[in-house]
Amino acid sequence: MKHNKPTDKNSWRHKLHEVIYEADTPMGKLFDIILLILILISVIIVMLESVKSIDLQYHRVFYVIEWIITIFFTIEYISRIITVKKPKHYIFSFYGIIDFLSTIPLYLSFILIGSNYLLTVRALRLLRVFRILKITRYIGEGNKLQKALIESRVKIFIFIFAVLIVAIIAGTLMYLIEGEDSGFNSIPVSVYWCIVTLTTVGFGDIAPVTATGQFLATVIMILGYGVIAVPTGIIGAQYVRMDREDPVQLNTQSCRNCGATGHKDGAEFCYNCGYELSPPKDIEA
Amino acid sequence: MKHNKPTDKNSWRHKLHEVIYEADTPMGKLFDIILLILILISVIIVMLESVKSIDLQYHRVFYVIEWIITIFFTIEYISRIITVKKPKHYIFSFYGIIDFLSTIPLYLSFILIGSNYLLTVRALRLLRVFRILKITRYIGEGNKLQKALIESRVKIFIFIFAVLIVAIIAGTLMYLIEGEDSGFNSIPVSVYWCIVTLTTVGFGDIAPVTATGQFLATVIMILGYGVIAVPTGIIGAQYVRMDREDPVQLNTQSCRNCGATGHKDGAEFCYNCGYELSPPKDIEA
Amino acid sequence: MKHNKPTDKNSWRHKLHEVIYEADTPMGKLFDIILLILILISVIIVMLESVKSIDLQYHRVFYVIEWIITIFFTIEYISRIITVKKPKHYIFSFYGIIDFLSTIPLYLSFILIGSNYLLTVRALRLLRVFRILKITRYIGEGNKLQKALIESRVKIFIFIFAVLIVAIIAGTLMYLIEGEDSGFNSIPVSVYWCIVTLTTVGFGDIAPVTATGQFLATVIMILGYGVIAVPTGIIGAQYVRMDREDPVQLNTQSCRNCGATGHKDGAEFCYNCGYELSPPKDIEA
Amino acid sequence: MKHNKPTDKNSWRHKLHEVIYEADTPMGKLFDIILLILILISVIIVMLESVKSIDLQYHRVFYVIEWIITIFFTIEYISRIITVKKPKHYIFSFYGIIDFLSTIPLYLSFILIGSNYLLTVRALRLLRVFRILKITRYIGEGNKLQKALIESRVKIFIFIFAVLIVAIIAGTLMYLIEGEDSGFNSIPVSVYWCIVTLTTVGFGDIAPVTATGQFLATVIMILGYGVIAVPTGIIGAQYVRMDREDPVQLNTQSCRNCGATGHKDGAEFCYNCGYELSPPKDIEA
Repeated sequence: MKHNKPTDKNSWRHKLHEVIYEADTPMGKLFDIILLILILISVIIVMLESVKSIDLQYHRVFYVIEWIITIFFTIEYISRIITVKKPKHYIFSFYGIIDFLSTIPLYLSFILIGSNYLLTVRALRLLRVFRILKITRYIGEGNKLQKALIESRVKIFIFIFAVLIVAIIAGTLMYLIEGEDSGFNSIPVSVYWCIVTLTTVGFGDIAPVTATGQFLATVIMILGYGVIAVPTGIIGAQYVRMDREDPVQLNTQSCRNCGATGHKDGAEFCYNCGYELSPPKDIEA
Repeated sequence: MKHNKPTDKNSWRHKLHEVIYEADTPMGKLFDIILLILILISVIIVMLESVKSIDLQYHRVFYVIEWIITIFFTIEYISRIITVKKPKHYIFSFYGIIDFLSTIPLYLSFILIGSNYLLTVRALRLLRVFRILKITRYIGEGNKLQKALIESRVKIFIFIFAVLIVAIIAGTLMYLIEGEDSGFNSIPVSVYWCIVTLTTVGFGDIAPVTATGQFLATVIMILGYGVIAVPTGIIGAQYVRMDREDPVQLNTQSCRNCGATGHKDGAEFCYNCGYELSPPKDIEA
Repeated sequence: MKHNKPTDKNSWRHKLHEVIYEADTPMGKLFDIILLILILISVIIVMLESVKSIDLQYHRVFYVIEWIITIFFTIEYISRIITVKKPKHYIFSFYGIIDFLSTIPLYLSFILIGSNYLLTVRALRLLRVFRILKITRYIGEGNKLQKALIESRVKIFIFIFAVLIVAIIAGTLMYLIEGEDSGFNSIPVSVYWCIVTLTTVGFGDIAPVTATGQFLATVIMILGYGVIAVPTGIIGAQYVRMDREDPVQLNTQSCRNCGATGHKDGAEFCYNCGYELSPPKDIEA
Repeated sequence: MKHNKPTDKNSWRHKLHEVIYEADTPMGKLFDIILLILILISVIIVMLESVKSIDLQYHRVFYVIEWIITIFFTIEYISRIITVKKPKHYIFSFYGIIDFLSTIPLYLSFILIGSNYLLTVRALRLLRVFRILKITRYIGEGNKLQKALIESRVKIFIFIFAVLIVAIIAGTLMYLIEGEDSGFNSIPVSVYWCIVTLTTVGFGDIAPVTATGQFLATVIMILGYGVIAVPTGIIGAQYVRMDREDPVQLNTQSCRNCGATGHKDGAEFCYNCGYELSPPKDIEA
């Protein structure tokens, strides 16, 4: 430990940091579970509020719970800023913005009373579900899934791109063949229909009625059915490849200086800013 | 054979146990086949009873067959309890409860005459299909499929979780974009529509009508189409991994003491309670 | 060549056998291609005949072409019987029955004039598409696909079986939840809807309207979406396994005695009846 | 460099060739990006023009942009012909025809004023999306995807063929079972419905109403659900196989004589016509 910046490991800020940012300690786990439950309750309330019959009956209950959750989130947001040494890093990070946006809606509703944007602002609270991702990130499988997607992103992009080109060409053909009587009013709508068909969703709100149109639809469907194999092959091969490689063990610590996570087990300094990490012995002691 | 608890291998209880619980002997096989046929007949009758036109015509026939099956199941249920040494283990096991619930509906219909719950109680008989699983368990492939699913359960859970988060966010956006004219009446309904679309089911009872809504729907569909590859990759890799490992041969014996199944070939004692198993030589002799 | 049964390799029966049953010689190839084209024309005509507007206009043309094709097929069927030494093996084989059933409809239409079964009898001609399979069998990939499906048949059966059990349980629940107003009239219809949903087809002719029903539908859809990975994993692993094994080279000969195909390259006697096969040198000479 | 045909590497034709055909130099990259943007704008305009409300408002804007793009494409097309030494190779190549067809529509609209074919001619401009493929070809993944599809083409063809045979047989059965009341008017329509169902698209514009029809539909759906695994297994195994092989590095050069692309890194002569390629040192110098 040749690091010359002494850290007061028993200060309340240090302890608060451990509770909020790390899931290794009992308090940290408890905090994460309470947070998870509050997020879930909050998301369910936002969804139920939009159902008129339920909202009419339980409006007061929802309002009170919403206030309790907002106050908890406000305290949590401020605590996160205080305990991190470089708050700007946190505030302008992805999760920092999510945390902020999902805390303010109730405060904004005072300012925007009677506004048309109120509905949208209240829906902002649903962004809280992304916070759950922050918690699930600690589960190794979540990381692996994310990694498989990121490493296959070029392939998936090329694939989606090819699907779009096929949809544009086929959609234009359907527009020329079917005409406006059967719902193929414009090329964008035809392309929309083509994607609905290629992806095997098939709403049926628009469907070809001419024989030529149905024949082309058949070709598109078989194409989509055969082509769905491509992303599967890509991701499958990616998983097989990742299975072979030895996965590096990551722990759940978060740097007290910049908030970076995903440190290797046994790492003593943050890979991002070089700040000293709390050694695992501390936690055990 | 240093086990000091002598078991009378020719007692009727022992023989009955062999018939009911094991599929290795000719009698055991016959019993399983009769049971399978009765379950299938029973399930078909419950289904046909719900079709009014058929029920009106064949009500008496169905009633008689139902009584025969119920009596057989009652005898089988009692036999299972008698032949197992620790009946509590069986009664409160998953299959014990299934066996009980799928036997009682006809008896309950006397008590609940004219009750509204009668329909539900009679539907309980359909739980008998789970008994078929108990029989297919003896087929190695069934075990393998179950194992592949169990070992991938964390990955599949994470995946479904991610799908739900996407559906909540996209559903809320669709609710804000489409408004109530096109069927997106509330956030829960929009989220329902989103899952219908993401999973490429696409009923078409609700479909976007605005250009923005159709554009977002397109994005959701392509996402769902690309993302369906993920569980496939997971299960596929799992199967490939399981192919490499040497599968342990399991036999179809069931412990006469606690009812545990899945014993290795050649095992002499139950892995669960340590009770002596009937050695395979016995069966051949 | 120690076989003591001399075969007159220049007899017309031998030559006809080569033309009809083998695709190695130029004449055999030509015969296969003519047959393929006639089958395709025949299938297209049967399909177009069912479209009333087209049938009214071209009825005479279709009738003449149909007669030409029927006469060709009759000659071919008789030739096949004559050239094979054990005609019974051919007549009662799968392809023998297909050949017979797809030849007779036009003759039957004289006997059944004005009959209601005429439509069905004429549809029999569509069985000719199976003849195409006989030709594609010569392509190695067709064999491989068939082999992959056959070797995975137990797994696929177990899988379909599990899907059916889930559909029965979930369908019964939907029937109890939704009631008869939204189209869930009986358990069989509910189970049908469940399979439509589980397989991600989603016609939308029946769709849940209650909140509970839509919630259950969501669970079913996600289940189906996740579970579609299972057969893919099974077949994928099967293909990978088959890739490793060294495939045995099969030739396109067919035994002149019993009609069995799929002989190994270089085989001198039929694996089925022991009859001498025409050696490959003959064909080259 | 023993090639005796001296090439003037500083001529304007040589430089223009580098800009248009190669993506290695800064100018070449810039040219590709401008081309890509113009293609995307052009495609979006063609699509928006077909939406009547938008076309009415922005007709003039679209017309001007369309002229600018057409002039750019005309210059590009002529430049490509001039800089290639064997213009016929380029003009009659796939991309040559695409380039020509996507350039002429605006010129044709003068000749065909008031013609019914005008709509189709204008839709021709959408063929420009294929030009994007020419650019994405430089990305290795695009090549890999294309290669995987090409190498699996026999398998995929056989698979689609088998799907078609199943659809024809099942479609005919549905036509015989359902009759004309529920939309199964003719065999082609029934086959169309069968493909809609087998590929799990499920529009719902036609749906079986009889019990037998729904039962057969169930069988078709489960078949389609199980069989979707086959192309996935094929492509997946193909990807795994390609992963093992060492991929050959290709560069982005295009032969100045015949226009062939896909040259290996370090290749000095065109694999197609033997003409000398510009050595990579040139570009660096």
